[in-house]
Amino acid sequence: MSLIRSKGERALIEYALKQMTKSNEMLLPPGDDAAAIPIGKGKALVMKTDFLSGLTDVPPGMSTGQVGWKTVTMNVSDLVAKGARPLATLFSLALPPDYTFEGAKELVSALFEASRFYGAEDLGGDTGEAEGLLIAGMAIGMADGRELMRRDGAKPGDILAVTGNFGKTALGLKILLKPLRASGEVREEAIDSVYNPRARLKEGLALAKSHSVTSSTDSSDGLAWSLHELSEASGVGFVINSLPITKRVSNYAGNLKLDPFNLTFYGGEEYELVVTIRSKDWVKAQRLVSGAGGRLIPVGKVTKRKRLIWAPKGGTEREIEPLGYEHFRNRK
Amino acid sequence: MSLIRSKGERALIEYALKQMTKSNEMLLPPGDDAAAIPIGKGKALVMKTDFLSGLTDVPPGMSTGQVGWKTVTMNVSDLVAKGARPLATLFSLALPPDYTFEGAKELVSALFEASRFYGAEDLGGDTGEAEGLLIAGMAIGMADGRELMRRDGAKPGDILAVTGNFGKTALGLKILLKPLRASGEVREEAIDSVYNPRARLKEGLALAKSHSVTSSTDSSDGLAWSLHELSEASGVGFVINSLPITKRVSNYAGNLKLDPFNLTFYGGEEYELVVTIRSKDWVKAQRLVSGAGGRLIPVGKVTKRKRLIWAPKGGTEREIEPLGYEHFRNRK
Repeated sequence: MSLIRSKGERALIEYALKQMTKSNEMLLPPGDDAAAIPIGKGKALVMKTDFLSGLTDVPPGMSTGQVGWKTVTMNVSDLVAKGARPLATLFSLALPPDYTFEGAKELVSALFEASRFYGAEDLGGDTGEAEGLLIAGMAIGMADGRELMRRDGAKPGDILAVTGNFGKTALGLKILLKPLRASGEVREEAIDSVYNPRARLKEGLALAKSHSVTSSTDSSDGLAWSLHELSEASGVGFVINSLPITKRVSNYAGNLKLDPFNLTFYGGEEYELVVTIRSKDWVKAQRLVSGAGGRLIPVGKVTKRKRLIWAPKGGTEREIEPLGYEHFRNRK
Repeated sequence: MSLIRSKGERALIEYALKQMTKSNEMLLPPGDDAAAIPIGKGKALVMKTDFLSGLTDVPPGMSTGQVGWKTVTMNVSDLVAKGARPLATLFSLALPPDYTFEGAKELVSALFEASRFYGAEDLGGDTGEAEGLLIAGMAIGMADGRELMRRDGAKPGDILAVTGNFGKTALGLKILLKPLRASGEVREEAIDSVYNPRARLKEGLALAKSHSVTSSTDSSDGLAWSLHELSEASGVGFVINSLPITKRVSNYAGNLKLDPFNLTFYGGEEYELVVTIRSKDWVKAQRLVSGAGGRLIPVGKVTKRKRLIWAPKGGTEREIEPLGYEHFRNRK
């Protein structure tokens, strides 16, 4: 007998993917960000469950309300990465018996409020006892079947883009977990991005409507891991020329002796979308995302060679390692 | 500040029901067995999440595979009680780090196998760490909007019916938890009904098609609690003339000095459907359920007087108390 902590989460997921029925009814392959089935008239029902565990997913100092919002954001983010509009949410809320009643009420209110923020009906769920806090969120959405954004369609020559900059959340987590001696506005912003993540709803919907996306995922396990997943699913590689991190965050990190490269690629808990766009459709895609109030930042290209490369202009190339958070095992 | 264990689960549920948006999109009222929203062409999407906690929901001796099956049954049972056909399942599987990898694989296989047994696509889900075992199941189904079976339509004069007998599971639980010195075939059957509960899929679908049901719920929190819920939602009462328990189980229980009345009403973890049928449609309903391979057993009548009464022929009337399992608080 071996323990789950020695095998790790991904070994279990691989086993589960093999056990799943490969049905014609599945519009997205097993292992994609969410599942989708047809429900007639070209429409697809898109579904996701992702849970927040008090043991591993709550950074120090996060409020009860923020915990509720984060649970919803985690689930909505995966729908949005597939181009689906959230319809409804449900929650299984497991609490230890010594949890306060006031805290439980705050959690419930936040779960519902966040659901409505993303345009989903808050349909309730189930509650009960467990050894520790655990909130399983479930988000159900609808998409036009032809607009579903998969992971496996990236082609060499496509443009790699993200919906926002990275590094800030990783910086915030490091400040909270170490804790690092830091102060000033960037510190506050970094911590805020840990406590109050939001899913890229309008960007995801605009991208779906643009019919320009060849692959898409969110970046909840870190940018490097997202690139790895798109690379594996599509059988392609990436060359990144422009590090998606602001000068401010990069400089601040430098002062703390933190490497901006590591912060950008090996973070996690960010909910940016990582997408590839047909180069002929780039202008349209960027216009639609801007029109929706978001941003689409080009960071590199899809390559035939199946490697993840950081190639700064005039600098030395560097390999991006396929590292990401894995439950039951340590980070990195 | 008060603790959740002093307030109890129902206080939290009541709070949550008040917080939920009362939207026209909701085809079933908050607090019903499942949630439903319209998805066009008169169809309703019916959704449920219910979780199994290692702390409270796994009887002694239940195998890992049985735990997986029970999780699916719990969720499917609520869809079926609303007349919906299961389409898909998703799971959030939280495991303690010292769980065995073999056990985790067995769980995953059972979750998928049970989903397929009920005709649902096994769409996977999420896994991660928690202090104890917790499986949040999610079932999504489809129903004809006009065939949704609610809790709030029972009318005086309707016939109260169940899809099977009670008492056996309660007996099995008592044997396992006490443990009681018992032997023989009834003991084995009672324990089997604890370990291997099944949802009443064909009965639920036949009842929905019969257009004869005025109210419906499942009996996962015990028959008394189901009657209480239907009574509250519909504003009616019930008189029960015929105890839905077999002679064999009743005699066996008597030998163990257990009261068949208590076993029948104050059990739980059973997944029979408890329904009310318009009396003019009774024959049709019973024929359709029989035709589907199930049973519809009449046990009493709906009354205007909002009380739950056991009135045996020639015997003394007795009040059925609204007792059921409540998380964070003790049973009864």
